[in-house]
Amino acid sequence: MISQFDQSGRLRHLITLKGLERTQITDLLDRAETLLRPAGDLPSRNEALAGRTVANLFFEPSTRTRASFELAARRLGADVLSLDVSTSSRAKGESLLDTIYTLQAMQCDIFVVRDAQAGIPEFIVEHVAPHVRILNAGESHLNHPTQGLLDMLTIRRHKGGFDQLVVTIIGDIHHSRVARSASHALSALGVGELRLVAPEHLRPDARDFPDAAIVDDVDRAIDGADVVMALRIQKERMSETAVPDPAEYFRRFGLDPRRLSLAKPDAIVMHPGPMNRNVEIAPEIADGAQSVIEEQVTNGVAVRMAVMEAVMAV
Amino acid sequence: MISQFDQSGRLRHLITLKGLERTQITDLLDRAETLLRPAGDLPSRNEALAGRTVANLFFEPSTRTRASFELAARRLGADVLSLDVSTSSRAKGESLLDTIYTLQAMQCDIFVVRDAQAGIPEFIVEHVAPHVRILNAGESHLNHPTQGLLDMLTIRRHKGGFDQLVVTIIGDIHHSRVARSASHALSALGVGELRLVAPEHLRPDARDFPDAAIVDDVDRAIDGADVVMALRIQKERMSETAVPDPAEYFRRFGLDPRRLSLAKPDAIVMHPGPMNRNVEIAPEIADGAQSVIEEQVTNGVAVRMAVMEAVMAV
Amino acid sequence: MISQFDQSGRLRHLITLKGLERTQITDLLDRAETLLRPAGDLPSRNEALAGRTVANLFFEPSTRTRASFELAARRLGADVLSLDVSTSSRAKGESLLDTIYTLQAMQCDIFVVRDAQAGIPEFIVEHVAPHVRILNAGESHLNHPTQGLLDMLTIRRHKGGFDQLVVTIIGDIHHSRVARSASHALSALGVGELRLVAPEHLRPDARDFPDAAIVDDVDRAIDGADVVMALRIQKERMSETAVPDPAEYFRRFGLDPRRLSLAKPDAIVMHPGPMNRNVEIAPEIADGAQSVIEEQVTNGVAVRMAVMEAVMAV
Repeated sequence: MISQFDQSGRLRHLITLKGLERTQITDLLDRAETLLRPAGDLPSRNEALAGRTVANLFFEPSTRTRASFELAARRLGADVLSLDVSTSSRAKGESLLDTIYTLQAMQCDIFVVRDAQAGIPEFIVEHVAPHVRILNAGESHLNHPTQGLLDMLTIRRHKGGFDQLVVTIIGDIHHSRVARSASHALSALGVGELRLVAPEHLRPDARDFPDAAIVDDVDRAIDGADVVMALRIQKERMSETAVPDPAEYFRRFGLDPRRLSLAKPDAIVMHPGPMNRNVEIAPEIADGAQSVIEEQVTNGVAVRMAVMEAVMAV
Repeated sequence: MISQFDQSGRLRHLITLKGLERTQITDLLDRAETLLRPAGDLPSRNEALAGRTVANLFFEPSTRTRASFELAARRLGADVLSLDVSTSSRAKGESLLDTIYTLQAMQCDIFVVRDAQAGIPEFIVEHVAPHVRILNAGESHLNHPTQGLLDMLTIRRHKGGFDQLVVTIIGDIHHSRVARSASHALSALGVGELRLVAPEHLRPDARDFPDAAIVDDVDRAIDGADVVMALRIQKERMSETAVPDPAEYFRRFGLDPRRLSLAKPDAIVMHPGPMNRNVEIAPEIADGAQSVIEEQVTNGVAVRMAVMEAVMAV
Repeated sequence: MISQFDQSGRLRHLITLKGLERTQITDLLDRAETLLRPAGDLPSRNEALAGRTVANLFFEPSTRTRASFELAARRLGADVLSLDVSTSSRAKGESLLDTIYTLQAMQCDIFVVRDAQAGIPEFIVEHVAPHVRILNAGESHLNHPTQGLLDMLTIRRHKGGFDQLVVTIIGDIHHSRVARSASHALSALGVGELRLVAPEHLRPDARDFPDAAIVDDVDRAIDGADVVMALRIQKERMSETAVPDPAEYFRRFGLDPRRLSLAKPDAIVMHPGPMNRNVEIAPEIADGAQSVIEEQVTNGVAVRMAVMEAVMAV
């Protein structure tokens, strides 16, 4: 595997949270935390990327992650180039590398890449010029490292630390890059216990989650949890879950008030968004007092700013 | 109805011109007027929105209004996030409120909203955080308040005041948010006379235009007018107008030289754009000496800057 | 033909390279060259367009040229408005001129126009206000002047001058605005020899390339060349080339190592991009030591900055 680190072990790209040291994650969270501002205040800004150009290359459609990276880049003083790319346009002839080389030749120095295909961000890292930085904004089912970081920041701000925590993730774990990146970070941070619960056919290979307990029963998975994270269900994958429809999924796996009552009384509820209400989560939970879902979004911009600052400082 | 005013009666959002005091409108027009610059000069700029993020949420397609708001925001120093939204994407699962909450969590402080559905801007006002501002950029057939303001600024610059004026609006009044917002503003400003003329089946309910005269005959409606405004006709609505095609519409309701000659010699011609030439307006009128259609566009940017400044100052 | 020059012969618009004096081209190349920076350095920036708004009107899809103009404009301090236009939207009713007049009324001062139809940029020049500037970003098969300039800058940086050079262009010359603009510039700069080679049915009319030699045989055309430029082949035009498929095209006209070996040992290889590898160019040539294809992209941003500065200074 191509290294995302320089010779001194500092982060040059962010492809995966796997292999990051606890202190590297903690430093990023510390820096991100200083970039948070109360709602209504002016967002934090600085000139860390002044004069730089960030290219957003989203080969999978995305509104919120793309907006989050775009705002992060602009609030660091960068120009942002958002390209209208899709796998179809790639199929039409221009190779991915030619697109990258072209943008690099236009002096785009940071590429934010989302792609449905595994290995694309690393492949790009292997080929770009030494001064270019690659940030993985979602890679197949494998990695979504800035999501993992924003989840960690959200948990830390509510729970202080990780070593006593029970974290439960519910949903299509098998296909989830969110779950994988959370698991990488939680392992590095020494989480007390990570429990994963999924519909039968969507349980992950245990080797993908070496430090987690794969639990059969939803109620048991939530019991005593400090953090409960519901994953987004792709409705088109409903048949794979061995449940016929959204209502049935909600009945069997949805995070509803009864289930949440099994967690610790001060448990927080997370979701990467966008939510399917009444599928993976009850509306009264999504909007309830224990929900930190909007804080996750706020923390996402801060974490992405911190990551961009870090990779450009190397 | 949700108030667009704060407790002191100042504008916090701009949803409708209905209920605005004459002085509130006049203040906005006065401010907008100071922001106008001669063609070719640098556009007026200031830092009233420096560090703020404006999110453009156009659930109906629009080129010109969206561009106008975008330029207004940038010339006030804001970052602008233009989202690729459509009613279809909304149908795909993410609720409108989840989109709004997400952007709000990213510290977008002003939302510019265009929607085909009545009540959406107010619905958003009810749910956003206190520091967020909502600007209605076109709501169903009901409101298009910045269009109303730019129309007033255009009239005032040519005619000085409103109390002696005869203003005639021709077209699909029934479905027109442009006519409604103009009528709200003209009422507040004490217009001399507002005449509305429409194809038979597109005449509005008189209760929607309490201060206007609904006139049957186009020639009579234009007779002696100071301002003649032609509305855009949606060609797909042609059958509803009880006229079979564009040529027939033009013959019966189009603003042509003969009809315009019935107005005052110094009458001005307005149109909200984009125009269907040879349908609602003759090309020689659209481009003629009495046309102020391009000034409307110029005034639109200034008015939107003035509105953004005003709501952010509260 | 409408003049792109002011009364003193200075460039007010850039529609075509035809008719430019050698010194005019040289001045633009000299200025562009000062704007180049080593990869990884901050791109060159200045405030030549501060406060100005550049409108990108691409009626033909384009990723790279549009991005290049957008970055050039931003690095000169301009606001950039990228409109979602297409010939279909134009067909839907709003005339091209109404779009232009609207943007002009919003104080857009530079329009970057790409259009599949011949004569559109000149048509716009005829109609805009005196302070507005039009830059042709690709016009049918006729003109692509900034491409011509970036090609000249690339050649000059490698070869010093033009009068001893042999330049060979291979491909669909008949439909190529790239070849035409290169030929205009090379004529003005006094190139030693320009050779054009195309599939039988895609040979140009000799009157379109008065200073060039139209050569039948690819090998002969490349023999002793200093510069070899392969043009992009539109696969949908393959049948017109009288060759049945990409493999056959590559065999007969593709720039491969054997053919390149016929050129001078220090010949440079150019391509306007995006490339069809294994159709008009062999991958090992595209990525080889003689390829200057990425430099062309880099030079493109610099050349577009120089052009924008020049037309705004008049």
